[in-house]
Amino acid sequence: MPDNSTEQTKCKIVVDAMGGDFAPQNAVVGAVQAFNQSRDFELYLVGKKSDIISVIKKNNLSFDERFIINAEHIIEMGESPTTAIKLKPDSSIVVGAKLVKEKKADAFVSAGNTGAMMSASTLIIGRIPGVGRPTIGAEIPNVYGTCYLYDVGAGKDAKPIHLLEYAIMGTIYAKEMGGVSNPSIGVLSMGEEEGKGNEVANEAYNLLKNSKLNFIGNVEGRDILTGKVDVVVCDGFVGNILLKFGEAVPKLLKHLLEQTAKKNLIDALKIVLVKSTLKKALKSLDYQEHGGVPLLGVNGISIIGHGSSTPKAITNMVLKAKLMYDKKLVHKIEKSISEYSNKKTDSE
Amino acid sequence: MPDNSTEQTKCKIVVDAMGGDFAPQNAVVGAVQAFNQSRDFELYLVGKKSDIISVIKKNNLSFDERFIINAEHIIEMGESPTTAIKLKPDSSIVVGAKLVKEKKADAFVSAGNTGAMMSASTLIIGRIPGVGRPTIGAEIPNVYGTCYLYDVGAGKDAKPIHLLEYAIMGTIYAKEMGGVSNPSIGVLSMGEEEGKGNEVANEAYNLLKNSKLNFIGNVEGRDILTGKVDVVVCDGFVGNILLKFGEAVPKLLKHLLEQTAKKNLIDALKIVLVKSTLKKALKSLDYQEHGGVPLLGVNGISIIGHGSSTPKAITNMVLKAKLMYDKKLVHKIEKSISEYSNKKTDSE
Repeated sequence: MPDNSTEQTKCKIVVDAMGGDFAPQNAVVGAVQAFNQSRDFELYLVGKKSDIISVIKKNNLSFDERFIINAEHIIEMGESPTTAIKLKPDSSIVVGAKLVKEKKADAFVSAGNTGAMMSASTLIIGRIPGVGRPTIGAEIPNVYGTCYLYDVGAGKDAKPIHLLEYAIMGTIYAKEMGGVSNPSIGVLSMGEEEGKGNEVANEAYNLLKNSKLNFIGNVEGRDILTGKVDVVVCDGFVGNILLKFGEAVPKLLKHLLEQTAKKNLIDALKIVLVKSTLKKALKSLDYQEHGGVPLLGVNGISIIGHGSSTPKAITNMVLKAKLMYDKKLVHKIEKSISEYSNKKTDSE
Repeated sequence: MPDNSTEQTKCKIVVDAMGGDFAPQNAVVGAVQAFNQSRDFELYLVGKKSDIISVIKKNNLSFDERFIINAEHIIEMGESPTTAIKLKPDSSIVVGAKLVKEKKADAFVSAGNTGAMMSASTLIIGRIPGVGRPTIGAEIPNVYGTCYLYDVGAGKDAKPIHLLEYAIMGTIYAKEMGGVSNPSIGVLSMGEEEGKGNEVANEAYNLLKNSKLNFIGNVEGRDILTGKVDVVVCDGFVGNILLKFGEAVPKLLKHLLEQTAKKNLIDALKIVLVKSTLKKALKSLDYQEHGGVPLLGVNGISIIGHGSSTPKAITNMVLKAKLMYDKKLVHKIEKSISEYSNKKTDSE
């Protein structure tokens, strides 16, 4: 890394140039575009140096080669995460995570192997003290804005205490990143009344009821979309299934419209006419607009993107990392979790 | 009930006239409309006789009063199911379930208190021998037709063996009611590979792998909509949350379109123009089109509807009950479950 001791406080973001189905092309182009939009941070690209330089040249990008960090190996999409990070210490994911661990960088962004990114973030960067399980959230557009859903896939078979941690971290994220003043929190359940959840949800309900968070009780699947609640917590198994189901909805709609168009010429004409309008309306459902998802609870900024990330998605991931840095998100989570842990110790 | 010993084999369907937010109006009108569409069954209305007669008169319906079975009480929407069915033996739900239990009727249809309908069906009508837990399924429209999702709310904290039972029952339902020739089955999970589920899903995977069912392995949330699989099994907690989330999607879309319309006059005009087309396309997402959901695994036909059921939804529920009768669904489930139980005993 270049010596820039004069700019110690400037945010440093590392992007995995080899991460994603269309890497290094999309990762490099997207990262450099983010850098060009806001030069208020240092961008590092980690990966095979020669490949990265080829992409830069091919796309006529301007990027200082001193900010490329060579990493010879790539953790492929199908590889077993924990084995891969052990066996490939010079892979872009491991090298990137280490830079954050060693405080040489503030954020690491990758659209590569999701499991490997999670393992590297949790095992290499490490958890914030007091966090039992880091979490990945989803920002789901709804009638009033956004619903922040935790967890959507960092862990399955979560314990009730993990759902409380998700609520603490989700509250900070919704407040700082979403501008929600006093985020309301709900436990995802089969009904609104107390006791309507499964065992884990019911115990989490009790923990949240006794916390200082703005807990509104149980919420149902529909409430994610109706805007009744800002932050929803659930086991990662439920959240992940829900998220993937939701992501398939726009595709289903497209199909239903096409089927309708086939049946009737007038409908077909109307659909052609309205296509761009529909696209605009559905824009907020498009994950590319949101960029990747941060892994909250690790001791640094870690943003994980879809394998199919476009350059635009990568750009948004980098800008999100920058905003998380500006908002001191990691520090605020650490503080809030520690306050809760102290409270717990006090009462014991 | 009228003496019609000459017609012992004719299907007898009992409709809870007092069930639903708009009862007895919607229940009575919907049931009589179903009867007028196909007179090939006997329709019984259970509830407060005087109220039922008022609705019949008010709507100028023609219905033989001898087919009204008086039940003085109503289990209200908010009541605790098990307590209510104990304390109100002369409620429409208990009376209706008893008629099926006593083989005086083949099917019971209600849009009343869902929990009470489930309890009455399970405790009064009783389970088919070998069924550990009855299940409610959802028919979710997708790119290729329909995905049958079990369980969506009959029970939470299901055991792996219950998911196998759901698969057996769901296979018969998809085949007989949906015309799917050899329904494929998937376990809802966080990834396609073996071991990607939570504990219950992973154990269910093993049970299904060793069954004679057309098991294709784990499926993800998106596969419910992509049409990759015909029958998906999961714990009722997950299924219920997913179903309610899905039901809120059309509302969200409506909202997104309205927001888009507000921003731009041309978009607004296009949306007005295309409204009926969109409505047609979204028709298959409308639960009213599907009617209520059957509780599979009980020893008779039990169909449970939304509290907000329209007359059309009630009509469809009654016609569904009739089709289940014609297809001998209860008998076929009994046979299939017993074959599996025997196999299990053989191998022990």
